[in-house]
Amino acid sequence: MDLGIKGRRAILMASSRGLGRACAESIAREGVHVVINGRTEADVLQACEEIRAAHGVEATPVVGDSTLTEVHDALLAACPEPDIVLLNGEGPRPTAFGAITPDAWEDTVQRTMVSPLLFVQRVIGGMEARGFGRIVAISSAMVKSPNPLMSLSHGPRLGLTGVLKGLSKTAVAHNVTINTLLPERFDTGRQQQMAKLVMKARGVTYEEARAEQVASIKAGRLGRPEELGDTFAFVCSAQAAYMSGQNLQLDGGSYEGVF
Amino acid sequence: MDLGIKGRRAILMASSRGLGRACAESIAREGVHVVINGRTEADVLQACEEIRAAHGVEATPVVGDSTLTEVHDALLAACPEPDIVLLNGEGPRPTAFGAITPDAWEDTVQRTMVSPLLFVQRVIGGMEARGFGRIVAISSAMVKSPNPLMSLSHGPRLGLTGVLKGLSKTAVAHNVTINTLLPERFDTGRQQQMAKLVMKARGVTYEEARAEQVASIKAGRLGRPEELGDTFAFVCSAQAAYMSGQNLQLDGGSYEGVF
Amino acid sequence: MDLGIKGRRAILMASSRGLGRACAESIAREGVHVVINGRTEADVLQACEEIRAAHGVEATPVVGDSTLTEVHDALLAACPEPDIVLLNGEGPRPTAFGAITPDAWEDTVQRTMVSPLLFVQRVIGGMEARGFGRIVAISSAMVKSPNPLMSLSHGPRLGLTGVLKGLSKTAVAHNVTINTLLPERFDTGRQQQMAKLVMKARGVTYEEARAEQVASIKAGRLGRPEELGDTFAFVCSAQAAYMSGQNLQLDGGSYEGVF
Amino acid sequence: MDLGIKGRRAILMASSRGLGRACAESIAREGVHVVINGRTEADVLQACEEIRAAHGVEATPVVGDSTLTEVHDALLAACPEPDIVLLNGEGPRPTAFGAITPDAWEDTVQRTMVSPLLFVQRVIGGMEARGFGRIVAISSAMVKSPNPLMSLSHGPRLGLTGVLKGLSKTAVAHNVTINTLLPERFDTGRQQQMAKLVMKARGVTYEEARAEQVASIKAGRLGRPEELGDTFAFVCSAQAAYMSGQNLQLDGGSYEGVF
Repeated sequence: MDLGIKGRRAILMASSRGLGRACAESIAREGVHVVINGRTEADVLQACEEIRAAHGVEATPVVGDSTLTEVHDALLAACPEPDIVLLNGEGPRPTAFGAITPDAWEDTVQRTMVSPLLFVQRVIGGMEARGFGRIVAISSAMVKSPNPLMSLSHGPRLGLTGVLKGLSKTAVAHNVTINTLLPERFDTGRQQQMAKLVMKARGVTYEEARAEQVASIKAGRLGRPEELGDTFAFVCSAQAAYMSGQNLQLDGGSYEGVF
Repeated sequence: MDLGIKGRRAILMASSRGLGRACAESIAREGVHVVINGRTEADVLQACEEIRAAHGVEATPVVGDSTLTEVHDALLAACPEPDIVLLNGEGPRPTAFGAITPDAWEDTVQRTMVSPLLFVQRVIGGMEARGFGRIVAISSAMVKSPNPLMSLSHGPRLGLTGVLKGLSKTAVAHNVTINTLLPERFDTGRQQQMAKLVMKARGVTYEEARAEQVASIKAGRLGRPEELGDTFAFVCSAQAAYMSGQNLQLDGGSYEGVF
Repeated sequence: MDLGIKGRRAILMASSRGLGRACAESIAREGVHVVINGRTEADVLQACEEIRAAHGVEATPVVGDSTLTEVHDALLAACPEPDIVLLNGEGPRPTAFGAITPDAWEDTVQRTMVSPLLFVQRVIGGMEARGFGRIVAISSAMVKSPNPLMSLSHGPRLGLTGVLKGLSKTAVAHNVTINTLLPERFDTGRQQQMAKLVMKARGVTYEEARAEQVASIKAGRLGRPEELGDTFAFVCSAQAAYMSGQNLQLDGGSYEGVF
Repeated sequence: MDLGIKGRRAILMASSRGLGRACAESIAREGVHVVINGRTEADVLQACEEIRAAHGVEATPVVGDSTLTEVHDALLAACPEPDIVLLNGEGPRPTAFGAITPDAWEDTVQRTMVSPLLFVQRVIGGMEARGFGRIVAISSAMVKSPNPLMSLSHGPRLGLTGVLKGLSKTAVAHNVTINTLLPERFDTGRQQQMAKLVMKARGVTYEEARAEQVASIKAGRLGRPEELGDTFAFVCSAQAAYMSGQNLQLDGGSYEGVF
């Protein structure tokens, strides 16, 4: 299937590893030039090199924490007129509700909700003026099914989802779509880290912690990053112009609700 | 993007024209052999011929109303082990709630909700046993946003959605996904027919009725059938295995709700 | 709290026992005259007698299956201008999806979805003309969280929910509200019957089956029928006029979704 | 209807006027002792006096902005073991998305989302230990139907909704319910202020601005504060123990979505 985006330009936050990297691979394969971002220089440079070699597109490295204004500046310096933007970042650690400090609230809200929106403020007008834009956020399935141990995650992320939905209502008239991917339990470093937290917290083995992760998914397995990457690529396609304001659950069919 | 379904076999109800035809084109292009169905023999035969010529796949005609048991028999005779099934059919006409007769309820529920489920009963077990299946229903955006003039449409269709969601919870463990597409106002014969109904009912011109359709869509245009067709193709892909029980709105971003 | 409905008249389907009876008690206590319905004459007569004695309101018996047209006739003969209508009825038995016969589909859809809507057709116009109406359906929490073993329940019930939502959009301008209660696991004969089905199907004791029911509810207990009855009474109150088209989950906080 | 909460104690944020005041009146009438809060001393003192006179309950004034830690301290000093908490506060002004400053994001998130959660952290444990609690937030219908001009409102409020939903899942086992009311267009000072903003922004008369507000509501009128107050009282009742994690829309039936 030809996605009709060859030659487009994308900024992908937190894309040197994990789900962000999978998104970069999938659109680079379709001929999109990418800006790769991450906090570890070696990872970012290596990702760029591999993407260039595999797909023959431009891959520009921007090293730094994508929640910082100066990194937003650098991303836009590397790609002043992005056609595609991936909002992505590290999720917070599980914390009991009563143990969340005022600083942790402020910091997490800033990183997870406000910072991506400040970046959207800087790109959406140009996308609308140019008549093409695809903004996609990687959020979490938990925003529709909140877990009391993850308030720091689903609270700000749900706020982000709501603001993006509001924006989608006017942007779509300019061929700018805004959609959110809601993954649950993909086979990335994040789930390995979560398994280690569970090991310590509950005294189980790593294998047991991993088996619990699998057991929580109705598909009976973790997701493969390239499954999310290809969904991202489809949502960014020319022919996905009529789909906006959607929250796609990529959770192995695990969500209980009908909508 | 390679969807990984070359050589698969699909049964597509009501696929000689409109949205169903667009779905058939999109997967035939990916190398899927298709069973084409419709009530008008000439249309079905012509569609098969065109699909064969364009995509080099097998295209088998089954003429008849896809809500009838004997047509279910014929569809399964033409393709006993389908990998992909499209549940699709004509929507009912707008009717004021008070004017719906008991017979109209019974007939519409039978055609729109019960008949597709009887067909699913016949195919889902085989898909699970073979470890691959993609069941997709074309429903209507109205199931999430009911219009009192369309009770005959969103009532049975919402019932169908609910049953399919329930089934998706166990099927996904066997790599059988079940998803629903919720279109609103695609540029097909259906919308032309709806515009003519509005002409008569309200005494406006055809152009005015069409302009109202466009005005009701936040994207500022009707959807193109191939946009829905390619979304269908993606949902049927190998890499969409982790997405099930979803209701994808293809409505030009028009739905007001956050979820 | 004065609910402002003293002297109003209500038709309550399936109200001689269980949740329907609890609804009747709660509004009779507020001075509403009630029509009590059930299939067992002795139960209906006894309920009427007890309600009259306890609350000093008129209680009129109508014996018969409330899904039948002749019983609709009798209900309306007993109360030609109802202010309040409770749509209620027995839920279907759990059935594996593959084992549902065409007749079971047709029969259940007729009883659970079409029949209540035919009754609504007969009362909604009068309510709108008189400027007061409260239509409440008792459905099931499963309509938002479908269970593959209960397709016969959540399918038709979700269809009913959708049609009622559509109707609510125009009725509210005439002070006619339409809402749905979504109970999960109340301590009535229904749950005792379900426990007995589980005993047979899985070879556990009755106490084990009941303990499983409790364990499935986040509140750690089954609901008390009078909790649902009083919620019904509030939804029927004068001051609930601004709330319509709602689905209130009465499930001990068990639903996982945010909306 | 006896709500079973006579003698309970409640802290109500922002309750000297408008919807908060209506909530205070409705539960004071049921015999609940109330802590009244607001930023204008005269209003708070007058509200306390009127509530005492009308309902014979204790009414304790706490003057100050309820988003401040020192006001939280004062509220808890006035009522160290609240049975009922109303989370309420002034909504932000409409602002075009592109014009929202980083400071406005930070300030609004702090006031609308983080501050109420910090207060919940201080009361929920005690409620659980004592085996009774009713936490209710007044949010906005917009959290389910976001308007791009109100990002500052629905973003943080949706975040709050999500965290409260997560918390409700464990609290309900201790007879502590957490629910949210979603009003749209009640006849309070807030809507008069909004009408004045519309006058200035669009050059219409006050009467035209008010007529537009009414026209946006399917009920054909604005809500009456006491309708929300009595709904709050019911949600706080003993018999509402089985209903938690709900978002009740009080919007004159205006929400388009089925759920």
